[in-house]
Amino acid sequence: LTSQPAVVFANDDLMKLAKDPNQWVMPAGDYANTRYSALEQINKTNVKNLQVAWTFSTGVLRGHEGGPLVIGDMMYVHAPFPNTVFALDLKNGGQIVWKYEPKQDPNVIPVMCCDTVNRGVAYGEGKIFLHQADTTLVALDAKTGKVEWSVKDGDPSAGETGTSAPLVVKGKVLIGNSGGEFGVRGKVTAYDIKTGKPAWVGWSMGPDSDTLMDPQKTTALGKPVGKDSGTATWQGDQWKIGGGTTWGWISYDPELNLVYYGTGNPSTWNPVQRPGDNKWSMTIFARDADTGMAKWVYQMTPHDEWDYDGVNEMILANQKIGGQDRKLLVHFDRNGFGYTLDRATGELLVAEKFDPAVNWATKVDLKTGLPERVKKYSTEASGQDVNTKGICPAALGSKDQQPAAFSPKTGLFYVPTNHVCMDYEPFKVAYTAGQPYVGATLSMFPPEGKTNLGNFIAWDATTGKIKWSIPEPFSVWSGALATAGGVVFYGTLEGYLKAVDADTGKELYRFKTPSGIIGNVNTFTHGGKQYVAVLSGIGGWAGIGMAAGLTGETEGLGAVGAYKALSQYTQLGGALTVFALPN
Amino acid sequence: LTSQPAVVFANDDLMKLAKDPNQWVMPAGDYANTRYSALEQINKTNVKNLQVAWTFSTGVLRGHEGGPLVIGDMMYVHAPFPNTVFALDLKNGGQIVWKYEPKQDPNVIPVMCCDTVNRGVAYGEGKIFLHQADTTLVALDAKTGKVEWSVKDGDPSAGETGTSAPLVVKGKVLIGNSGGEFGVRGKVTAYDIKTGKPAWVGWSMGPDSDTLMDPQKTTALGKPVGKDSGTATWQGDQWKIGGGTTWGWISYDPELNLVYYGTGNPSTWNPVQRPGDNKWSMTIFARDADTGMAKWVYQMTPHDEWDYDGVNEMILANQKIGGQDRKLLVHFDRNGFGYTLDRATGELLVAEKFDPAVNWATKVDLKTGLPERVKKYSTEASGQDVNTKGICPAALGSKDQQPAAFSPKTGLFYVPTNHVCMDYEPFKVAYTAGQPYVGATLSMFPPEGKTNLGNFIAWDATTGKIKWSIPEPFSVWSGALATAGGVVFYGTLEGYLKAVDADTGKELYRFKTPSGIIGNVNTFTHGGKQYVAVLSGIGGWAGIGMAAGLTGETEGLGAVGAYKALSQYTQLGGALTVFALPN
Ligand SMILES: O=C(O)c1cc(C(=O)O)c2c(n1)C(=O)C(=O)c1cc(C(=O)O)[nH]c1-2
Ligand SMILES: O=C(O)c1cc(C(=O)O)c2c(n1)C(=O)C(=O)c1cc(C(=O)O)[nH]c1-2
Repeated sequence: LTSQPAVVFANDDLMKLAKDPNQWVMPAGDYANTRYSALEQINKTNVKNLQVAWTFSTGVLRGHEGGPLVIGDMMYVHAPFPNTVFALDLKNGGQIVWKYEPKQDPNVIPVMCCDTVNRGVAYGEGKIFLHQADTTLVALDAKTGKVEWSVKDGDPSAGETGTSAPLVVKGKVLIGNSGGEFGVRGKVTAYDIKTGKPAWVGWSMGPDSDTLMDPQKTTALGKPVGKDSGTATWQGDQWKIGGGTTWGWISYDPELNLVYYGTGNPSTWNPVQRPGDNKWSMTIFARDADTGMAKWVYQMTPHDEWDYDGVNEMILANQKIGGQDRKLLVHFDRNGFGYTLDRATGELLVAEKFDPAVNWATKVDLKTGLPERVKKYSTEASGQDVNTKGICPAALGSKDQQPAAFSPKTGLFYVPTNHVCMDYEPFKVAYTAGQPYVGATLSMFPPEGKTNLGNFIAWDATTGKIKWSIPEPFSVWSGALATAGGVVFYGTLEGYLKAVDADTGKELYRFKTPSGIIGNVNTFTHGGKQYVAVLSGIGGWAGIGMAAGLTGETEGLGAVGAYKALSQYTQLGGALTVFALPN
Repeated sequence: LTSQPAVVFANDDLMKLAKDPNQWVMPAGDYANTRYSALEQINKTNVKNLQVAWTFSTGVLRGHEGGPLVIGDMMYVHAPFPNTVFALDLKNGGQIVWKYEPKQDPNVIPVMCCDTVNRGVAYGEGKIFLHQADTTLVALDAKTGKVEWSVKDGDPSAGETGTSAPLVVKGKVLIGNSGGEFGVRGKVTAYDIKTGKPAWVGWSMGPDSDTLMDPQKTTALGKPVGKDSGTATWQGDQWKIGGGTTWGWISYDPELNLVYYGTGNPSTWNPVQRPGDNKWSMTIFARDADTGMAKWVYQMTPHDEWDYDGVNEMILANQKIGGQDRKLLVHFDRNGFGYTLDRATGELLVAEKFDPAVNWATKVDLKTGLPERVKKYSTEASGQDVNTKGICPAALGSKDQQPAAFSPKTGLFYVPTNHVCMDYEPFKVAYTAGQPYVGATLSMFPPEGKTNLGNFIAWDATTGKIKWSIPEPFSVWSGALATAGGVVFYGTLEGYLKAVDADTGKELYRFKTPSGIIGNVNTFTHGGKQYVAVLSGIGGWAGIGMAAGLTGETEGLGAVGAYKALSQYTQLGGALTVFALPN
């Protein structure tokens, strides 16, 4: 008699917790980044009766991204800079059990490109992990808030900052970095969960020893990447200030033991200054969770000319394509294409526009993986000091950091999107550490003939088709939540929490929270009752005008003009709103 | 045939509006400061079903006092420094029609004794009146927010500030001043509603030409005050820096044509430095609305030794005493006595402790109006540099600015109270313009054997008896609302809005708003539906530790220690929460 050896994963506890829909133990709800909940107490029929159960002000203004974790009776709420973290006792009316407020040098604020946001804390082995604005990763005792260890990941005086949520995987805490607008070189670092010592660092560019690539075994669309692919497509030493930061979300497939994330724009935004493909900026990375070694990569926008960072989340779903069960990775890129790949091999299966307004490329060639560019919208072709007009999407993409959700029940992806175009004028810029390394002037506006700056859509990733689309006056900058109750939730920049029918998109409920929503909706139960929670607090790149008090049309990297009407709807203020059905 | 001449009041419009329970046109709801609403859609039976209808963040942290006005389809929301004012369109989901944000020198912040609060805007003749922190009174077009006129009332560099709500009376806008902790001399000024030109100024102390007193006609407990009574009880020129500021509420009786308000503590807090009664600090003033002439005065705490400012609101009610209909003025003083006076004559009818813990005086003699002091708690008797212990109430009184409500239906007054005692050590202090002129070190704590720092009580002002009392962990620093539905509302420092039975005090509903409540609850209808609204945003004197980031026990004029546990319940953040019954 033989028996299959049981596959043993470290972090069994976290995986078990993540499977319990009563809790919300990681920012995306699960390792697959689905933001799906099996809870169905709140459903299509009764969601219209939803009420606010309680609220909590964070005491911090500016943009509140991410959302709270719920582990047992405790809720963990975080805030943007100064990155206060609260442990609230759900048994006790949300009383504050502990509060952690790091002392951070406020000089980090001006080197954060897109507001002082933070996308949330992570949990693992009895600890809460906070990735501070100043790049410090700190481990707090989840019960007491006591600092267990703390490590500096980067140097804010050189423009390195932290905004992304950590991910705990197999005894390690993974974080990315921010600073692509300051020439910061991207990396993901895995820290030992017990000690805070770095286990591996995977750079976005550099020699193979930095990128953790094997010239033969690491593949791009099935082919070996070759030696030092992370420097080969750069002129001279430009890769050292080449961007490709990793400030988005990280996913994990425990069976393949791969972590997935994307890299951001190459620095500078002036494409003329950096000839070449600029690998591996704008790239999906699949790395071995233990060693960091890159299994496969796929660069969506070689030689970016528009700031189409590739950092948006990778949603891991198992669906049939052409009648065949596939392990998919679905990614809604800033560049406006929704990509479906085989997450084991990196094979490109589907790449279609998820906003019909996209005009910089006609299509993506599934064989070569290359977008077919439209010369009229090429800022490289137009050249330096020429204003290329009417490019869709704008630099903040057809979707930015706002994470989508996937429902295995409907098989659909629910995607908060931007519907914004731009004029883009590159100019020559010199690199100085800690100074903006942007080199382009932008202005943004809705697509011609349109007034809505956003849509909330349902997407079929097996065919690359929009199932339904809800126009929204502003970009939907909040993360979506899909539930087994057949209800999908999202927030709007004016401050509405909305619930829609997962099948049809029909609006079932809305509530005006204190401020604009750029947080991510989640759900959990306590005492047998289902709750839905969301942070409001206008800000982020779309809300940078309000968050930072900017009024010039092209300020805030071009976003201020397009979103200026927001101030007629909402004001700053960080608050958690928790919803439930009446008793 | 003869006919009574119709009594014609200017401001008929405002009086008419104030009688319409569908609107909320002045901070206190009506001229009588009753904070009573005739609305009864929300009642004892259904209030348990109350829900949050919508919310609005003001974008300002620190203490939010006062509450919104509702006039027609428009709601006016104000905020503490920088004193942003919003006009929200109730027809249109609370959309912001206009926003006014004064440019104010932030140097005013450190000279505000008790947080950067503002108690609300006033409405009259199509204008919204804002009394800014820097003492500027500004008239805004209620439709557009355009500045119509603006006038500087005082000098912040000499410690003069503005926190109180204006009152519009007969073509004039009345405001008081703040700065008793900086030796500012109190006054109330009436400005012409059309031009902003001063019509009269009534000083709290000074020669008769300043106090607007007639030695013969102005009375105190029925007797003429005599010549220059506003300087006679001061040593030398001390009255010039003598305090008696007027930062509380103003009431108005249109038939008697009298306005009523109280004056604050004499400066300094060290009683040894200022011998005499220090008239007319700590005094209720009844002034002619047209001329400002003082009709009568009553000094509650001559020669204050405890900072028992007399500014708390005067509630005008008509009730029977001894079988006789009386025009009453009811006032819950900081010193712990609830006073009932005849508001036409200033006759003292009732004066009883509304907190049994009060120990500095045994009783008030109704003939002389004098409190009978207990030597043990006299900081004057103990002398300079001696710490007098266990005085009840503390300097913030048995009640502070938090306004009470009166229900003509129950005949009861609903009073948010403090239950706090103190140690008080006076020391010698020299006057320098713009510098604190306090001269005492305080610490505060609950009465012996008690842990609750507050009570919410129902009071019979005709007998001076507590009808019922609800203990609260912290002082109740919010204003109360009484309604014809038999429900009384108030907010708590932890952030709960509570609804209780007006007859029994039984709790019927509670909701945790984003932050601690020091705002005043109000109610109105829109589209035929009754709403209840309250500002949250922890701060004020009780919340000064959190608002200003102070942690030393005796900081914040002694309040920080007693309220330090507040930070376990709530955080800063200004938000309006609007409640309604489900559809
Ligand atoms: O290149 C970078 O390092 C970097 C960092 C961040 C960030 O950390 O928030 C953003 C971006 N880029 C960016 O391109 C972008 O569109 C963006 C939006 C936001 C946001 O939170 O709203 N952050 C960022
Ligand atoms: O003497 C003054 O001028 C003055 C001003 C103020 C104010 O304007 O807020 C307060 C006080 N005193 C005061 O004694 C006091 O207890 C107080 C409480 C508060 C508050 O808003 O919580 N303000 C004030």
